[in-house]
Amino acid sequence: MQIAFLLYPGFTPLDAMGPYQVLAAVPGAAPVFVAETAGPVLSDSGCSVVAPLSLAEVPRPDIVVVPGSLASFTAMMRHSPVLSWLREASTHTSYITSVCTGSLLLGAAGLLSGRKATTHWAARALLADLGVTVVPDRVVDDGPVITAAGVSAGIDMALHLVERLHGRDLASAVQLAIEYDPAPPLDSGSAEKASPETTRTVLAGLAAAGADWVRG
Amino acid sequence: MQIAFLLYPGFTPLDAMGPYQVLAAVPGAAPVFVAETAGPVLSDSGCSVVAPLSLAEVPRPDIVVVPGSLASFTAMMRHSPVLSWLREASTHTSYITSVCTGSLLLGAAGLLSGRKATTHWAARALLADLGVTVVPDRVVDDGPVITAAGVSAGIDMALHLVERLHGRDLASAVQLAIEYDPAPPLDSGSAEKASPETTRTVLAGLAAAGADWVRG
Repeated sequence: MQIAFLLYPGFTPLDAMGPYQVLAAVPGAAPVFVAETAGPVLSDSGCSVVAPLSLAEVPRPDIVVVPGSLASFTAMMRHSPVLSWLREASTHTSYITSVCTGSLLLGAAGLLSGRKATTHWAARALLADLGVTVVPDRVVDDGPVITAAGVSAGIDMALHLVERLHGRDLASAVQLAIEYDPAPPLDSGSAEKASPETTRTVLAGLAAAGADWVRG
Repeated sequence: MQIAFLLYPGFTPLDAMGPYQVLAAVPGAAPVFVAETAGPVLSDSGCSVVAPLSLAEVPRPDIVVVPGSLASFTAMMRHSPVLSWLREASTHTSYITSVCTGSLLLGAAGLLSGRKATTHWAARALLADLGVTVVPDRVVDDGPVITAAGVSAGIDMALHLVERLHGRDLASAVQLAIEYDPAPPLDSGSAEKASPETTRTVLAGLAAAGADWVRG
């Protein structure tokens, strides 16, 4: 079961690495990072992760995971090599999934037509602009398309996917293996829970870091 | 504020990338992956992450984060270049931290003498063998040494560290930026919550994957 994680310049590392860690623990899974050109791919956070295979080398993955990015997804939404690969891959996959603003790439590739999806809380309006029915849930399962909210939500999405693929027992084992019993020291992790001041701080921070799509 | 993430062959990617994503969002933070030799480092899950700097190039980090690994930490516990770097770095750091079995490296370097610490649930006995007071909490804060439980616990540890460094407002903003409002679809994420069958499955799976230190 080949699981292709699409890396592109400026991707958010945890968007990819959260689901990767979950799915790498599934027996028989072959998760692999892919990029337009094989080699190290620079993330939006400064680190680089290696994509050992190019998109052309992975034409028929069983599952695709598309991470989001702080800013570069807007360019990728007009980048035909990536959009073409997503469209072609989607005709073979059993599941096509995204984390954070990765759903904008799925939308731009036409893969969310008539579907429900989610994204990072700050990007919901942007996703709705594509004609997608935006559901503000952490994980939105619309059959063969599963989307996750911002960054860390990819872990929950991947566990949900493992349960769909292999059932509750294996998903429970993976959860225990990565000791995923989260205990955030604060309770500010969603747009609904955070204070207006915190929300303003984050929107300003995203814009200052290059997210020119952010709307106050 | 230089934050050095120690990469070594066989490290667990999410152990490093969880805290990295949190700490990379802190204004003024300069997180960097380091390894004995600069270049791509192969993880225990198959992917490689680039360490742009060698240990020799980062002698005085402000903070150190040591990820765990499925199996290779036992060799690293006898690997003097890494242990020497940890000891030397610890004389300059404000915080030395670990995730999962990374605490075994801190213990082997002598940095947990007289301290409380935690580790992956399956490795608690191993850590106790080093004379460390093992506390089965998700994050154990013992002044300048902060350790986290298995894999995903590094995210909670890093948020705790951000709160200690910069206070509640910034930690709340980082939590919202990465939309860390976890919602695991199952409740099997700790040794205390998982069923005996799930625990046996995971221990057998770890041993089969090469963790020769696992005790039934």
